[in-house]
Amino acid sequence: MAKAKNERPVILITNDDDITSKGIRSLVEAVQDLGKVVVVAPNTPQSAMGHAITIGSPLRMNKMEIFADMGVEAWQTSGTPVDCVKLAVDKILHRKPDICLSGINHGANHSINVIYSGTMSAAMEAAIEGIPSIGFSLLDYSYDADFTASKQIVHKMVSELLQQKNLDKHFLLNVNIPALPPEKIRGIKICKQAYAKYEEDFTERLDPHGKKYYWLTGEFKNFDKAKDTDVWALEHKYVSAVPVQFDLTNYSVKKLLEKSKLFQ
Amino acid sequence: MAKAKNERPVILITNDDDITSKGIRSLVEAVQDLGKVVVVAPNTPQSAMGHAITIGSPLRMNKMEIFADMGVEAWQTSGTPVDCVKLAVDKILHRKPDICLSGINHGANHSINVIYSGTMSAAMEAAIEGIPSIGFSLLDYSYDADFTASKQIVHKMVSELLQQKNLDKHFLLNVNIPALPPEKIRGIKICKQAYAKYEEDFTERLDPHGKKYYWLTGEFKNFDKAKDTDVWALEHKYVSAVPVQFDLTNYSVKKLLEKSKLFQ
Repeated sequence: MAKAKNERPVILITNDDDITSKGIRSLVEAVQDLGKVVVVAPNTPQSAMGHAITIGSPLRMNKMEIFADMGVEAWQTSGTPVDCVKLAVDKILHRKPDICLSGINHGANHSINVIYSGTMSAAMEAAIEGIPSIGFSLLDYSYDADFTASKQIVHKMVSELLQQKNLDKHFLLNVNIPALPPEKIRGIKICKQAYAKYEEDFTERLDPHGKKYYWLTGEFKNFDKAKDTDVWALEHKYVSAVPVQFDLTNYSVKKLLEKSKLFQ
Repeated sequence: MAKAKNERPVILITNDDDITSKGIRSLVEAVQDLGKVVVVAPNTPQSAMGHAITIGSPLRMNKMEIFADMGVEAWQTSGTPVDCVKLAVDKILHRKPDICLSGINHGANHSINVIYSGTMSAAMEAAIEGIPSIGFSLLDYSYDADFTASKQIVHKMVSELLQQKNLDKHFLLNVNIPALPPEKIRGIKICKQAYAKYEEDFTERLDPHGKKYYWLTGEFKNFDKAKDTDVWALEHKYVSAVPVQFDLTNYSVKKLLEKSKLFQ
């Protein structure tokens, strides 16, 4: 992906927390010296939107001055994170960016969260389109989370990737960063997705009219004892980096079913 | 999964088109003789919701008489398809069903659509929870689609699966059915997910106040020339059945990155 001399790579940035969040500002700050940054992000929080797209209603898009202090072009949209990537490519850039970065998410997207996460779905959308992409998440949900270490890690990883000459166009990475100061982080570990998930529970309440309603809650549980998982790495103070694919075919079951008489 | 004598399997049914759609009624009709059917489905259309869950607002749930003619219990919820599965397990069944069926979707969910589809996300949620699951889709988007062939295929596949003694609890299948009469369908093919997707385009319009808005549109393109894909099977009048996994780790890239000096 090395660019010709004087040609700066185009870096598309999006997120799911919304364009005003501290996480996306930190991401812009971390990579602004690495290329021409363009931000296209949702105008409302879109966490847990998964790979939702907007087909039943039209989308709005407005230019914003929010990153003018860094000379960075920014657009907010009424769509989901996935819509943002599509709009960016088709209506703003009119080309594919050289890389797409999503985040930095306020909160973890390791293990099964990759499936629910708007941050990772935006990154996956880019990878499907043939744009190498990374989703970044910090293990701190707070509005005012400290992104100091995250920014260093983002800068290191993105600058190394931009120097790769033969990066696969569908390259997709799910990066989670422990909520620690830089000097406490032990390094970056290439991992697999842990089988760890939320054990759901619903909090049942009565509205003022006596009718029931339910809040989704849950407790996180790790069922995966392997040591090369993202959950293991994060628990041991490493940054986890999981290469992700969008071919969901289960090839081993495919082979079994082809040999069996089921459905024949 | 063979049940003790007299013990009927519990079959959870959901969808993304909403509980009043013809597709979900066809699914109930197709399997009602195979077990105790319980329906928990959205009260509004939730197509293209992907794996979205509802965390920012509470959920409502109401019992309905919509399938009383078949003696089938039914609940509508204000949530996404994934929410429906979670609510069904935790608040309605108070146990895991023996199998979860999602659909029958009005429209295709082959190839990359597996990632955007609410139908498949509901089925995947069940599989993550350890409930074998199948998503069914008919290649006909019309409100009044003909589900005659689909019902025969669903009955055959579900009755065969219910007889399997050692079915993996995370078993997940993405089944697409061509819009053809039963005698024209050539059989069921075990497939992989094609790399085929929509090439997006946005239709730009002006509102009465002169402001732009955008409709997401697109043209479907198949980039995959392999003959064991779902798109190939459907084009050749087969039902496609793709075994699906929710571990998104790209293990071959993981191996490459572990050997490389990137990020070290």
